[in-house]
Amino acid sequence: MARLEYVQKAVSGRARLGQLKTRKGVVDTPAFMPVGTQATVKSLLPEEVAGLGAQIILGNTYHLLLRPGLKVVEAHGGLHRFMGWPGPILTDSGGFQVFSLGALRTVAEEGVSFRNHLDGGLMHLTPEVAVEAQERLGSDIMMMLDECPPAGAGREYVAAALERDARWAGRAKAARTEKGGALMGIVQGGVYPELRHRSVELLLEHELDGYALGGLSVGEPKEVMMRVIEQTVPQLPRDKPVYLMGVGSPEDLVACAGLGVDMFDCVLPTRMARNGTLFTSTGRLNIRNARYAEDQAPVDETCGCLACRRYSRAYLRHLFMARELLAYRLNTIHNLHQVLGLMAALREAIAQDQYDAFARDFWARRVPEPGEENSSDGGNHA
Amino acid sequence: MARLEYVQKAVSGRARLGQLKTRKGVVDTPAFMPVGTQATVKSLLPEEVAGLGAQIILGNTYHLLLRPGLKVVEAHGGLHRFMGWPGPILTDSGGFQVFSLGALRTVAEEGVSFRNHLDGGLMHLTPEVAVEAQERLGSDIMMMLDECPPAGAGREYVAAALERDARWAGRAKAARTEKGGALMGIVQGGVYPELRHRSVELLLEHELDGYALGGLSVGEPKEVMMRVIEQTVPQLPRDKPVYLMGVGSPEDLVACAGLGVDMFDCVLPTRMARNGTLFTSTGRLNIRNARYAEDQAPVDETCGCLACRRYSRAYLRHLFMARELLAYRLNTIHNLHQVLGLMAALREAIAQDQYDAFARDFWARRVPEPGEENSSDGGNHA
Repeated sequence: MARLEYVQKAVSGRARLGQLKTRKGVVDTPAFMPVGTQATVKSLLPEEVAGLGAQIILGNTYHLLLRPGLKVVEAHGGLHRFMGWPGPILTDSGGFQVFSLGALRTVAEEGVSFRNHLDGGLMHLTPEVAVEAQERLGSDIMMMLDECPPAGAGREYVAAALERDARWAGRAKAARTEKGGALMGIVQGGVYPELRHRSVELLLEHELDGYALGGLSVGEPKEVMMRVIEQTVPQLPRDKPVYLMGVGSPEDLVACAGLGVDMFDCVLPTRMARNGTLFTSTGRLNIRNARYAEDQAPVDETCGCLACRRYSRAYLRHLFMARELLAYRLNTIHNLHQVLGLMAALREAIAQDQYDAFARDFWARRVPEPGEENSSDGGNHA
Repeated sequence: MARLEYVQKAVSGRARLGQLKTRKGVVDTPAFMPVGTQATVKSLLPEEVAGLGAQIILGNTYHLLLRPGLKVVEAHGGLHRFMGWPGPILTDSGGFQVFSLGALRTVAEEGVSFRNHLDGGLMHLTPEVAVEAQERLGSDIMMMLDECPPAGAGREYVAAALERDARWAGRAKAARTEKGGALMGIVQGGVYPELRHRSVELLLEHELDGYALGGLSVGEPKEVMMRVIEQTVPQLPRDKPVYLMGVGSPEDLVACAGLGVDMFDCVLPTRMARNGTLFTSTGRLNIRNARYAEDQAPVDETCGCLACRRYSRAYLRHLFMARELLAYRLNTIHNLHQVLGLMAALREAIAQDQYDAFARDFWARRVPEPGEENSSDGGNHA
């Protein structure tokens, strides 16, 4: 059996419903993957994450490499046992965090050298090291090491990077051992249509288990991101999953699922929760707002999450203003419930070939909170 | 029916087993009350607190008065509904926190004036205001306003304070309305046996629903605290509960239950948890310690809590070192499980008239962790 199988179940316009079969279980797509950066989805127990509807979570290789280190995780039998999450885990390569370090790293054909953010120690990441690290974590879906150029990168830089990325894809695949999980490639090419196309062509030669769109949601205008996705998805094989990295606002999830994306991850829902911004069926709500101080209504009347079933906006605001730990937890439960519930509703709509109606209704319901910006913020990545 | 009934079920030496009947349910004693200072037992949901064995929790009037304010809690139907805890709640009077403010407050016959720690606003607390505040919170067991002199207070100061406390007890009782919960008196008198006796005599005249020992565990030597308890408990009526305020280390719980104390509260188990100090069947363990970095054993092999059943010391250490929110939650679950389990075991031992054997065994098992101090720290109060 393949390390990863994608089965398409239905289509609605360009959106598609499917199932991803991993060695740790099935994932219904389009799927949102909560981020468990440091071997925990912040504030929650694994059974809570699963109870909210998550079938797969993401782990960050860079963070785990630094702390607690691969040796410790491996000795526990891998990340699943270490953190108590029995389901599928996708890991990134560590590259995104390394390239975010900016001035602290140098890229060469061999790989990337960098000083880590914890103790400044010099570290080296190569395509082979990234695969080995992910195998030692026990990752079910590994990501190839790639370079993620910043939004403003010029064409020549982006072109050279994607050519090297493609060579790194080959090295990553060659480095994978028998016990390794699936391996996904990452399409780069910035905002340049022909470079994206070139990246796809080069990656397809390596016959990877799925293809991700990288280098998006890094500061480029939203319409540019959408255009790149719209152009690239049709160039990818229909029998492999398409993964849009670092995207996860409700608005982007609806829009990008409509372009045929199957997998998403983003720290946005959980990070916003910890900052007091709560998703609702009509937009967003900032629980710090004084207008909620005596408000006995739930955050969202239509939401079935624990926080909304039991607590008032006033209580959640009180917890947040008092910096109580329960605030971050209840807010995280709420936002993940919103996002994972949205994915379930999207899948249902696609199954009934109602994607367009669903998306129209979703947009019609959006109402900006008075005095609040309603846009998703940047810096969505872990 | 009385607002609070105490029924003694068994004795073993001076220790006693009993039940406290409150308007919100029964509490088996000796009981430990987890502290929910700001309308939450930090990091936990109410059902988790109950699942750990807590039958009653404590709320802090001072904190709730300041934030979110009585009006908000009252509008929600009281503290129980506001925070989602349906069981009994004991509230303090706010006095302890006010007197902890030191230079910022002034005491007079009428009450105490102080500047709060949040915005420095001038506030006044009187016996009547403290009762009214607790009634508005919906407290099931209210505490009278008293003055808690510091450990080094001289005899004259302490003597004058307890006389005024007794007058305040009368005013508190007179202020209580029909809808008010039970009202407990607080024995003061510092470390002076005859002053403690005098305080008891004066309070008994007011026929309160129970009696607390206040002004202990505030810096005095442990043997002095034990002597005061040993002397005072027999002076109190057997048909009313005895509550030792601000005490909650495993060692103190075992020792003081042995002197006939029925109720305890303390932030120590939960605060220590958030600082990484975990109770075990043999003493304490500091999860930050580097020796646990690769340790796959649970915190305590004999512990049945979620953290010990599922996670290794290495995982808990990783979460703590990475400052993950789940660390505080799992540590809190562990320490509360330890303390509440200890209370259940104590009750079982008393039921079988085996308190002495239980206490001997408890002390025989204590082993200091290498390189760790094994004493309970000061500042146990909320």
